[in-house]
Amino acid sequence: MSKKAIGFIDSGVGGLTVVKQAMKQLPNESIYYLGDSARCPYGPRPKEEVVQYTWEMTQFLLKKDIKMLVIACNTATAAALDIIRERVDIPVIGVINPGSRAAIKHSKNERIAVIGTKGTINSDVYKQTIKDKDKDISVISMSCPKFVPLVESNQYNGSIAKKVVAETLKPLLKESIDTLILGCTHYPLLTPLIQNVMGPCVTLIDSGAETVSEVSTLLDYFRLAESSHNKEASEYRFYTTGSPKLFSDIAENWLGQSNFTVEKVDLVNLIGND
Amino acid sequence: MSKKAIGFIDSGVGGLTVVKQAMKQLPNESIYYLGDSARCPYGPRPKEEVVQYTWEMTQFLLKKDIKMLVIACNTATAAALDIIRERVDIPVIGVINPGSRAAIKHSKNERIAVIGTKGTINSDVYKQTIKDKDKDISVISMSCPKFVPLVESNQYNGSIAKKVVAETLKPLLKESIDTLILGCTHYPLLTPLIQNVMGPCVTLIDSGAETVSEVSTLLDYFRLAESSHNKEASEYRFYTTGSPKLFSDIAENWLGQSNFTVEKVDLVNLIGND
Repeated sequence: MSKKAIGFIDSGVGGLTVVKQAMKQLPNESIYYLGDSARCPYGPRPKEEVVQYTWEMTQFLLKKDIKMLVIACNTATAAALDIIRERVDIPVIGVINPGSRAAIKHSKNERIAVIGTKGTINSDVYKQTIKDKDKDISVISMSCPKFVPLVESNQYNGSIAKKVVAETLKPLLKESIDTLILGCTHYPLLTPLIQNVMGPCVTLIDSGAETVSEVSTLLDYFRLAESSHNKEASEYRFYTTGSPKLFSDIAENWLGQSNFTVEKVDLVNLIGND
Repeated sequence: MSKKAIGFIDSGVGGLTVVKQAMKQLPNESIYYLGDSARCPYGPRPKEEVVQYTWEMTQFLLKKDIKMLVIACNTATAAALDIIRERVDIPVIGVINPGSRAAIKHSKNERIAVIGTKGTINSDVYKQTIKDKDKDISVISMSCPKFVPLVESNQYNGSIAKKVVAETLKPLLKESIDTLILGCTHYPLLTPLIQNVMGPCVTLIDSGAETVSEVSTLLDYFRLAESSHNKEASEYRFYTTGSPKLFSDIAENWLGQSNFTVEKVDLVNLIGND
């Protein structure tokens, strides 16, 4: 049992899809979130840079005394999960294993596709993770570099988004997949558009939602769950390196509530001043 | 990474529903299973007896050098999980937390029912577990003492089963639930009959299937997963205190395969001779 918060980090607002699930599945828990919107997207950046940025975000939240860290970003998980795990002594959870696991569980025809940023797809980490668990499953990977900017600019349900999603996903339609991993935590905001293109027979796997189930598993296993039964005491603190106004607008809209604070942080100078 | 098997224990054949999921989700893993059909059902027995029997089963599998233990039985989990965890030094996983977690994740109207044996339902463990995670969720509990004997006698899809299931579940129909936890690992064999009575709007939670996801999570977290990529090397060994023929018939039918061995064991004398 621990009253400390769970920390979430993401390249921007995408990790809010994970937070939304955490609010539903773990309503007793406090959540501290840091989104690095000023340096978003992480997808096209070299691995070393993503590792450095992820480490900076981790250091920021560690100072807030969190009990567990969720790397709520596929690009950061692919680049930095193992490194961050070695450096800190609280449990650290990424989004790639949970998404892979859920896809294997749901797929019946053993043909799974994964979409993500260039960084995630080029790392080939989903394919490797799934193949490690079941070598007979076919994995089709595709990067969708236009999706994150749509979400970060709060244009995720307009006609432009609809057109971009349809054009981007077209090549997947001939692949006979029955399961599609949304391998970027920004993508669940595009779920209605993606489902519409893929059709009702393809199951979409929200890697973030699956990650929260694993957070819950580990909270129980390590007896770290908050058990006050007092949801009202749960505290939601959001930090962003970008515009607090834009972050707040997206968060309020996506989470359907406004009982949170948003604070702007200057990650580079904060870390630099240590 | 570990080539050792995962151990599963159950009061009888019910845990095979968990094994079936493990074969799908974790095809690289070897599985050793012990079903105590000679002393089944556990449901009506006093807690102390269930703890003793569960400990005897645990000792049997520990001698086979397993890397993880799954208590694939709700009655045994309710009575003995904490005690077994304290006594052994490998990870031990029960089925109640995973089932509760999945129900919270799926329920939209926050009205969840759980069905199980008398032992599980009288322990009130599902209700407590769910309320600990979210106090606002309503939990309706009902014991179904006639279900396990139907399954253990291989009569789980005949007309008697259909009638028993319909009569037993009738009181639940007026409770406006949207999620029903199958709080006994025997019950998924009755899934078509249960779903038919409850209607398509009620999501059935197979606590065993959810448990396998958690097994997978912990295998990854503790780096215990088998990574040989050689499914064919996976070994399935079944032990029963009851009739190997009956066990084998049910296992072959339920698992849809026969690449396993079934061996009769005399648990009392084995343990007694130590």
